[in-house]
Amino acid sequence: MRFHTRKWVKPGDLNPNRTLFGGQLLEWIDEECALYSIIQLENQKTVTKFMSEIDFRSSAREGDIVEIGIEVVKFGTASLTLKCEVRNKMTRETIITIDKIVMVALDEEGRPKPHGKTKVEFVKDRLAD
Amino acid sequence: MRFHTRKWVKPGDLNPNRTLFGGQLLEWIDEECALYSIIQLENQKTVTKFMSEIDFRSSAREGDIVEIGIEVVKFGTASLTLKCEVRNKMTRETIITIDKIVMVALDEEGRPKPHGKTKVEFVKDRLAD
Amino acid sequence: MRFHTRKWVKPGDLNPNRTLFGGQLLEWIDEECALYSIIQLENQKTVTKFMSEIDFRSSAREGDIVEIGIEVVKFGTASLTLKCEVRNKMTRETIITIDKIVMVALDEEGRPKPHGKTKVEFVKDRLAD
Amino acid sequence: MRFHTRKWVKPGDLNPNRTLFGGQLLEWIDEECALYSIIQLENQKTVTKFMSEIDFRSSAREGDIVEIGIEVVKFGTASLTLKCEVRNKMTRETIITIDKIVMVALDEEGRPKPHGKTKVEFVKDRLAD
Amino acid sequence: MRFHTRKWVKPGDLNPNRTLFGGQLLEWIDEECALYSIIQLENQKTVTKFMSEIDFRSSAREGDIVEIGIEVVKFGTASLTLKCEVRNKMTRETIITIDKIVMVALDEEGRPKPHGKTKVEFVKDRLAD
Amino acid sequence: MRFHTRKWVKPGDLNPNRTLFGGQLLEWIDEECALYSIIQLENQKTVTKFMSEIDFRSSAREGDIVEIGIEVVKFGTASLTLKCEVRNKMTRETIITIDKIVMVALDEEGRPKPHGKTKVEFVKDRLAD
Repeated sequence: MRFHTRKWVKPGDLNPNRTLFGGQLLEWIDEECALYSIIQLENQKTVTKFMSEIDFRSSAREGDIVEIGIEVVKFGTASLTLKCEVRNKMTRETIITIDKIVMVALDEEGRPKPHGKTKVEFVKDRLAD
Repeated sequence: MRFHTRKWVKPGDLNPNRTLFGGQLLEWIDEECALYSIIQLENQKTVTKFMSEIDFRSSAREGDIVEIGIEVVKFGTASLTLKCEVRNKMTRETIITIDKIVMVALDEEGRPKPHGKTKVEFVKDRLAD
Repeated sequence: MRFHTRKWVKPGDLNPNRTLFGGQLLEWIDEECALYSIIQLENQKTVTKFMSEIDFRSSAREGDIVEIGIEVVKFGTASLTLKCEVRNKMTRETIITIDKIVMVALDEEGRPKPHGKTKVEFVKDRLAD
Repeated sequence: MRFHTRKWVKPGDLNPNRTLFGGQLLEWIDEECALYSIIQLENQKTVTKFMSEIDFRSSAREGDIVEIGIEVVKFGTASLTLKCEVRNKMTRETIITIDKIVMVALDEEGRPKPHGKTKVEFVKDRLAD
Repeated sequence: MRFHTRKWVKPGDLNPNRTLFGGQLLEWIDEECALYSIIQLENQKTVTKFMSEIDFRSSAREGDIVEIGIEVVKFGTASLTLKCEVRNKMTRETIITIDKIVMVALDEEGRPKPHGKTKVEFVKDRLAD
Repeated sequence: MRFHTRKWVKPGDLNPNRTLFGGQLLEWIDEECALYSIIQLENQKTVTKFMSEIDFRSSAREGDIVEIGIEVVKFGTASLTLKCEVRNKMTRETIITIDKIVMVALDEEGRPKPHGKTKVEFVKDRLAD
């Protein structure tokens, strides 16, 4: 799994118990899945259709740094199924995992649109990182 | 199911496709579950532990009004299991449903804490609404 | 008065005195009045025109849950006059009351538009809650 | 009346009718009154206690610049009464006026605390602007 | 240098070290330069093109009030060069200074557009403040 | 240069010209530099001290995906100097570059604190990505 986006847990991201607000975390994950899919499917009109069960295994505190990992599970005709893990960058502890997030590419009228992709493509210079 | 909290879909809540950003919707749901549980369990230290699968059945557009419904599924020893539905207030269309959201009451050290509740309690004057 | 929308007071909602920022509270009230009016008048182009005096009777702290109540005072030709109360869900303490909030329905050119409504209408299944 | 703070109306400040969201405007006003009072009363623990009626005379659109003016009406023992006007910087049109906003200085226990001020004081170099 | 806009440092503006988040400060400065330029150049399509080096000399804490000062350095053909200082309103301490911020007026196609201005113009009644 | 964090340009990130608000971009960069430094220096109390000149070479539009790259320029005694580039993920166009961003590690009293680091360290499993 590749971990790209990192977030710094700031005061505005906390719940009143002073741990990372779960809703904020879900928002970060949804955004990451959307942009990952847009890049892979080369279609800006890609939306979240389904998420499998979500287990909140640990939390994060103010000042922690979390990173969001995405892995492709399956390419469908108009869909892309992803797996997601969020972990604490320093402690390596897993915060949340979601085994299956289904993203769907849409056409202008909002109907599923075949994307013709079958495998992960790296934008060229990422391979040389 | 009782629907309490309503949200007005404003420009800042949209994704670039100009529909309600899924991450924003998940944030609203998580907040609603947290505050519902805090009221029922009378423990401010209540956190989201698990969400069952999430089906995004329809979306909402700018200016739409959505309402969030919560129903109790089960009272556990330290937990409360909820069911959630979000729907469009005017069209009555269901936007999202989540069958099982497990919230857990914690003690000061962050360990599960029995809450002693076994059924939904209404704050008195809500019955007279 | 019916209390629908509930808010969880999070760190980002506080002023530097660590109580609920009054401006945030006014924003919540304005949104609630707008969406209540849109539903009743069935016109998405409904704006706030006037608020009578506002008495900040108590505040709220981080982790508190507040609920916003709305009651119809009067149906005008193009307007709807509301009364609003915000209270603390657990302590039942009143935080703020506003006796008169005038909302106006507009046409496409932004002029007042008669709405033809004379009494509160419940979307059918709310009666069966 | 002196106009200090200016705001640029950005997409995230709009309501779904694409005019400045009234709740956002009230939030800006409340913040401006708070910081003006803190400077004058030299007490960081200063809160909004009362606002007289609010007339929304015109609105603002995306890209407009609004400026917020504050004027002292009266110094009380522990309070400061302000008058506020918000106007469009380019068109000079008044957007909102509030004749009376009562701010109260508090002590550590949250009780009104006499501030000993009787007139507006300018931090020295503002006179030389 | 004239100081107009003031900001109240609220919990949501802090970094996890509980001082003003530098990114938030840069956002405030960029907005102030944009709106100052829009007013002077009378062109809403004015964008930030360049900032000279930024020295973070001190920070601010929750509850502090900062004010943002702008001064014109030079009028170019399609550009306006500004100087900016942010300081703590009460302590008078300088927080940040930027010697040169180049703003450019654009035409509808996004190309530099001569603005014909050569000196600072005051909207009339500001002189009478 | 390694590009980690990605951002999806949403409506709330735009300026009124409907391009990415420069202040938002600067906020993203500052956060990325902070968290990168915290990870490398293993000190959560790390702050931005200096940024060299910033050239806004192109912008981004709603729906674009930008990625933020960071490279170490130099390890000082208590500081870390970074270079930053933000580019459009799909078009590969550079949006902004900053050659020198100086971050400083602080001790509990806010004084520079030697960090003892002399080269970039990878958290072990990132090497195996």
